[in-house]
Amino acid sequence: MDTGVLLVEQDIRDLARGTAFLGSGGGGDPHAVVLQLLDILQKSGQIRLINMADLPHDALVAPCGWMGAPTVGEEKLPNGREPVAGLRMLEHLKGRKVDALIASEIGGSNGLAAMVLAAAEGLPVVDGDGMGRAFPEAQMVTYNIYGLSPNPVVFSDSNGNCLAMEAVNAAEGERIGRQIAVMMGGACHVFDFAASGYEIKQYAVRGTVSLAVNIGRAIREAKASQRDPFEALFSCLRSTGYYNHAGILFDGRIVDLQRNTVGGFSIGSLTIEAFGDSGETVKVEFQNENLKAYKGGQLLATVPDIISVLDRETADTITTEKLKYGQRVKLVGTSVPPILRTPEALAILGPLAFGFPEIYCPIEQLNNWI
Amino acid sequence: MDTGVLLVEQDIRDLARGTAFLGSGGGGDPHAVVLQLLDILQKSGQIRLINMADLPHDALVAPCGWMGAPTVGEEKLPNGREPVAGLRMLEHLKGRKVDALIASEIGGSNGLAAMVLAAAEGLPVVDGDGMGRAFPEAQMVTYNIYGLSPNPVVFSDSNGNCLAMEAVNAAEGERIGRQIAVMMGGACHVFDFAASGYEIKQYAVRGTVSLAVNIGRAIREAKASQRDPFEALFSCLRSTGYYNHAGILFDGRIVDLQRNTVGGFSIGSLTIEAFGDSGETVKVEFQNENLKAYKGGQLLATVPDIISVLDRETADTITTEKLKYGQRVKLVGTSVPPILRTPEALAILGPLAFGFPEIYCPIEQLNNWI
Repeated sequence: MDTGVLLVEQDIRDLARGTAFLGSGGGGDPHAVVLQLLDILQKSGQIRLINMADLPHDALVAPCGWMGAPTVGEEKLPNGREPVAGLRMLEHLKGRKVDALIASEIGGSNGLAAMVLAAAEGLPVVDGDGMGRAFPEAQMVTYNIYGLSPNPVVFSDSNGNCLAMEAVNAAEGERIGRQIAVMMGGACHVFDFAASGYEIKQYAVRGTVSLAVNIGRAIREAKASQRDPFEALFSCLRSTGYYNHAGILFDGRIVDLQRNTVGGFSIGSLTIEAFGDSGETVKVEFQNENLKAYKGGQLLATVPDIISVLDRETADTITTEKLKYGQRVKLVGTSVPPILRTPEALAILGPLAFGFPEIYCPIEQLNNWI
Repeated sequence: MDTGVLLVEQDIRDLARGTAFLGSGGGGDPHAVVLQLLDILQKSGQIRLINMADLPHDALVAPCGWMGAPTVGEEKLPNGREPVAGLRMLEHLKGRKVDALIASEIGGSNGLAAMVLAAAEGLPVVDGDGMGRAFPEAQMVTYNIYGLSPNPVVFSDSNGNCLAMEAVNAAEGERIGRQIAVMMGGACHVFDFAASGYEIKQYAVRGTVSLAVNIGRAIREAKASQRDPFEALFSCLRSTGYYNHAGILFDGRIVDLQRNTVGGFSIGSLTIEAFGDSGETVKVEFQNENLKAYKGGQLLATVPDIISVLDRETADTITTEKLKYGQRVKLVGTSVPPILRTPEALAILGPLAFGFPEIYCPIEQLNNWI
């Protein structure tokens, strides 16, 4: 696996902007991990990205990321040793070396986290992930939806403690793992769903790392050349062939914000009011990620489609922990790839899985984009 | 390791009475595990006890037991599969079969728990344990005191979940493990400090299973022949050469009882008032186990010495979760073996480790028994 491309400093910055957007408001702010990665590149470390197609069928691929409330990640930075201890335990349990890493979720800081370990261990990172965005719970990954075992799930913390779990199913793994994250200081590093190259090629969401880099680049270049960054974003998404529909759901000012850290999650809602005299408002509900947007009685979008709040001038994504009263924003919606819209996927990622009464309806139908 | 003796039904009943006494009020009521063991014997399963001296130096010996508040164990009975899943994970991590089991603590139900798994797996149980009594926390074992690593610590629950931890130290293992026990339904099965026969022979408290059988037998036989069961108990203890000092600390009626289940522990105190007009009272403080007894300003006993509340007619031990207002009891104190009284041991098991201001003083000195 000496194929693939080496990422450069500009790629990392573009990637961070793209993962923040794909996070649907969640996944945590990538700022700290961007600094870690730039430091690695300056010390002539290498971050190598490989296509899923180049992954040997018999490779051992390890999905990884951080578990915990994003608000914790804002104040408690990794010391760098957490994922190494977890990797060693995973390799001991599997009886072999890991050949490649892949992000558990592309959204937010978790879209970049695997690269820190990959650079330190000389491993490649696979261009894809298990969510195609960010979701709040560990069982909400394609690997679980399509029947892979999460075991062993390996947790590690900044004190040096490491835990490997054989969970009876992914939901039990999430329930127990969430408390482990709390006991490990509010956030911990997690490996789960380690699988063969063959399995990862079947079930991962493909090309999401390069998509995130392209999103960041499109917004950056549009702003540099005085073009509309939102139009650049939408045309980038539509060109993928799998995030086909994207557009502005609403434009206005945040006039109400409720947010609590409950049971290891950031939970709340925000209200955006239109400019001018119309008095129109849109309400967005979130659990780490934005889950549902509606205008009066009219639904605009629900999970698993992506709902992101962007600064209306810079087109920078504002994650749920950075929302503030008075921000002037555009609410942007994006369709997710078909692998996240099957009946099997909707049973785990749809509105009902979050306790909402709505039946899932594709964002492009709700907004007459087709 | 085909040496040792096979335990019979009467041994199990005597053992349960003895482990309840050695539990210092804790370790949980052995009733449910006694029923499991009698069922095993009736189905011609075998429970084999071996001397520590017969353990090969290179044997892999696995200490085991249950973690959680005894009050939970009263209502949530094991389904029998918990320890098997844990054993398999331990063996996978160690890369070899376990050769023998040993109780983590001899006190209460944990003094018998290893035998259920041993019978199912055809393994012998070693005559000894890691506490020589019961203690509330997992790091309070001789294996930790004398420097063995607890890792891997393996937790398993009734749902089929299994967790292996590499803890930075035994105290971190207890802190995280206690919450795992809570998430696993309030109680879970634990393997820790798996070690060689050579290490176990150096650091375990020896002969405590046969001592518990002897305690039970002495009380039973004394009652059958109308002798004083308390005198029979004391002479049994004194004959061991290592639980040398034992006697009655106080005799009276329980007139006050405070007990709460807090953070996975049973915490509280009881007051015993003397019969007659003296008005003398003794107060006992407990955290799962009885930790300290004092009469007015005078200290009668503290951890690690054993403080047990016995029914004054039957000489049955009343564990802390079974204490009731009005019970007529004898408060009995017993010295623990020298291996639990070294400076290293007292740093982890002494009054200061439980937040008490007292300096440890041997029970035989406090009560002028020598």
